[in-house]
Amino acid sequence: MTSFDEIGGTARGGTLYGIGVGPGDISYLTLRAAALVRDVDVIAFFAKRGLQGNARGIVDPLIAPHRHELRLEYPVTNEIPPEDPSYQEQISRFYEESVETLSALLRQGKSVGLLAEGDPFFYGSFMHIWRRLEAIFPLEVVPGVTGMSGCWTRANAPITWGNDILSVLPGTLGEEQLIRRLTETDAAVIMKVGKNLAKVRRAVTAAGMLARAIYVQRGTMQGEQIMPLSESPDAGGPYFSMVLIPGQGRRL
Amino acid sequence: MTSFDEIGGTARGGTLYGIGVGPGDISYLTLRAAALVRDVDVIAFFAKRGLQGNARGIVDPLIAPHRHELRLEYPVTNEIPPEDPSYQEQISRFYEESVETLSALLRQGKSVGLLAEGDPFFYGSFMHIWRRLEAIFPLEVVPGVTGMSGCWTRANAPITWGNDILSVLPGTLGEEQLIRRLTETDAAVIMKVGKNLAKVRRAVTAAGMLARAIYVQRGTMQGEQIMPLSESPDAGGPYFSMVLIPGQGRRL
Repeated sequence: MTSFDEIGGTARGGTLYGIGVGPGDISYLTLRAAALVRDVDVIAFFAKRGLQGNARGIVDPLIAPHRHELRLEYPVTNEIPPEDPSYQEQISRFYEESVETLSALLRQGKSVGLLAEGDPFFYGSFMHIWRRLEAIFPLEVVPGVTGMSGCWTRANAPITWGNDILSVLPGTLGEEQLIRRLTETDAAVIMKVGKNLAKVRRAVTAAGMLARAIYVQRGTMQGEQIMPLSESPDAGGPYFSMVLIPGQGRRL
Repeated sequence: MTSFDEIGGTARGGTLYGIGVGPGDISYLTLRAAALVRDVDVIAFFAKRGLQGNARGIVDPLIAPHRHELRLEYPVTNEIPPEDPSYQEQISRFYEESVETLSALLRQGKSVGLLAEGDPFFYGSFMHIWRRLEAIFPLEVVPGVTGMSGCWTRANAPITWGNDILSVLPGTLGEEQLIRRLTETDAAVIMKVGKNLAKVRRAVTAAGMLARAIYVQRGTMQGEQIMPLSESPDAGGPYFSMVLIPGQGRRL
């Protein structure tokens, strides 16, 4: 019988790893992700100013003292709306600088693991690094359990049955758009709910789906909250909040 | 520093575990899934007649000889179309019988792990067992990396950027429906492509998305094949085949 360590494998010098760390609960890290977190020369992660960094927090129990860590701190987060050209300019410059720092480490022959919440290729900040470096350095992406999988698991709500169509919608869509999209789908996950919660709830109600809609806040993380959307707080939720509308496809 | 074993935890007697085993590569099992596969009293899995069972195959290196295994064999697979009432009747009866067998083991106080490819709550057969037993026995679902995450990872294709809308569509949809759904989305994953490949390719072409569409067959499994959809085989693919249409949302 093969051990977890053998299955997880090791890291190679000069390689950049995009490590999906899953939705929050550390036991949902993959064997490959866990092995790399333990093995890479440098643990890199994004963080908002003044905060630990969510992905870094998830893997904390796997990180021994005195590891080489690289904190990449966003210059802006919520102060400027993402549509603002100044936001885009500052964030682009931040990614460019991050890429320079990472490149220097990779050229020194170090293995670098860049942590990504959920799955790195599903709405991941990691992708902005990936597109700048994938032609230049050896790179491995480790898929992860997505935040939405973590949420529907904890909500005890299978999301798609039989031939259900699933729509993943950003809560930033306009209300009319949301209503139309919801009306045309069997199942839905609405991401980035946060400040859009009141609008999202109106749209779900207008689409006739309120009775089966579930609100999940910080799914699988500390402070997880799950409730019918109809009972969700009026004030809006944190960034890690989501609305699930399970499909009603064929039961066998 | 915590060990993988400690993080993965153990199984409790009399509990049914729905264990997501991920897309195919065993290193994409979660720590929780791997620990349960090793620890449960009974490993249960679905299989088609004459085959090993795909989920069972994935975890093979973790299963010591002489474990108690329960093979649940589908009475029908492709011989009858799923829309046929006789198919539905036979499959329903099969799930009922499976539930009886599982219940007997759980009543004896055994911990039972029912393997599920990908994520158990995302188009999983496990859900048909879950809905019959979740009110009766203690039950834990372990989310997994989905087949689609495995596919876009291996295709080196980030699937959603910025505020992209993602549509997950079954390849069984009619051609006109597929075209309309594709035209209205930013990114798409078309599942259950198999015998529907020619129709799916026509629809993707009609929607003007052929240039960025990727065909993945047996993603992360042995025999994995990845190619532009435009070069995919005319004859159609196996059950584990998928078409990916990456989004083109905001690059920063």
